[in-house]
Amino acid sequence: MPKVAEILIARGDGFVTEVTGEIMLQFGGFTGDRHFGLTRSSCSRTPWHPRGTPISNTRQISLVSLEECAAVAQDMGIARIYPSWLGANLATRNIADLSALPPSTRIVFPSGATLFVTEENVPCRQPAKVIAYEYGHPELATEFVKKAIGRRGVLAIVEREGLIKTDDKLKLIVPRSRKT
Amino acid sequence: MPKVAEILIARGDGFVTEVTGEIMLQFGGFTGDRHFGLTRSSCSRTPWHPRGTPISNTRQISLVSLEECAAVAQDMGIARIYPSWLGANLATRNIADLSALPPSTRIVFPSGATLFVTEENVPCRQPAKVIAYEYGHPELATEFVKKAIGRRGVLAIVEREGLIKTDDKLKLIVPRSRKT
Repeated sequence: MPKVAEILIARGDGFVTEVTGEIMLQFGGFTGDRHFGLTRSSCSRTPWHPRGTPISNTRQISLVSLEECAAVAQDMGIARIYPSWLGANLATRNIADLSALPPSTRIVFPSGATLFVTEENVPCRQPAKVIAYEYGHPELATEFVKKAIGRRGVLAIVEREGLIKTDDKLKLIVPRSRKT
Repeated sequence: MPKVAEILIARGDGFVTEVTGEIMLQFGGFTGDRHFGLTRSSCSRTPWHPRGTPISNTRQISLVSLEECAAVAQDMGIARIYPSWLGANLATRNIADLSALPPSTRIVFPSGATLFVTEENVPCRQPAKVIAYEYGHPELATEFVKKAIGRRGVLAIVEREGLIKTDDKLKLIVPRSRKT
């Protein structure tokens, strides 16, 4: 049964998130999170727009799975990778291949609150630097960017508002796959 | 070269859209269109929410391709299906398999205005009834719902605002496919 392992929030300007017990999903993201907003400024993730252009915020919430974090840590030869180091907002348990969830998958919480998966996340240097710093080995940064490809989780927007809590059970509504 | 064949708008309450030469994309959709909005009420398309629940509007804009419309018409044994009958907002030319575009594909217009594909559309009874009425054959309604599966186009939200025009050239940014 897929479950919420951790809920995490970035309260300040920093990249790293901190664990919190529950949070309100609002249109725009997590109330109080630095990524909250219906729009955001274009960045290096969207190089087809000039940097700083107002665009729709399809990166409101970052999800990672504990299983994928553990697998990447193992391949890097380190004890573990905390979801907070990745700037994640939500860590799941029992979704082994979270990063493979197709965009438009809905993740429904017991309160009715619902996330809409917009796209797979891609490893970048920010969490890589955090891991390298935590372990005191600069070379781990490059390792992370390579080893986390396909296991960096997914991004989502809020489809329906509501309260979400640690240990919530999750229902996944996956779009039908194409025959062609 | 993918191009804009028609831009269409639903000005009133009706399902059918009418052709217009150009339109402003704003966060929320087409200015003046009945589907415009950052949120909408849950309907039969989202049966995992009680009907009427406020949800994020991931169906701001409906796109169809002229090639897919022609293929469905041919399979139904009718002369043609107009994008307006389908309630489409945008008809494309030279994107033969528009419905297969994966969600998170970006469609970039010359002005910089950009659409973000949220999901594939699914045939329903509304356009089916319009086609049956236009040809005077009620049985065509059921035919359309069967024959249009996988060829009903895609839905999108506005990623970046801007003016779009008939005959605009389109650039597609398709997400990398997974190896696994």
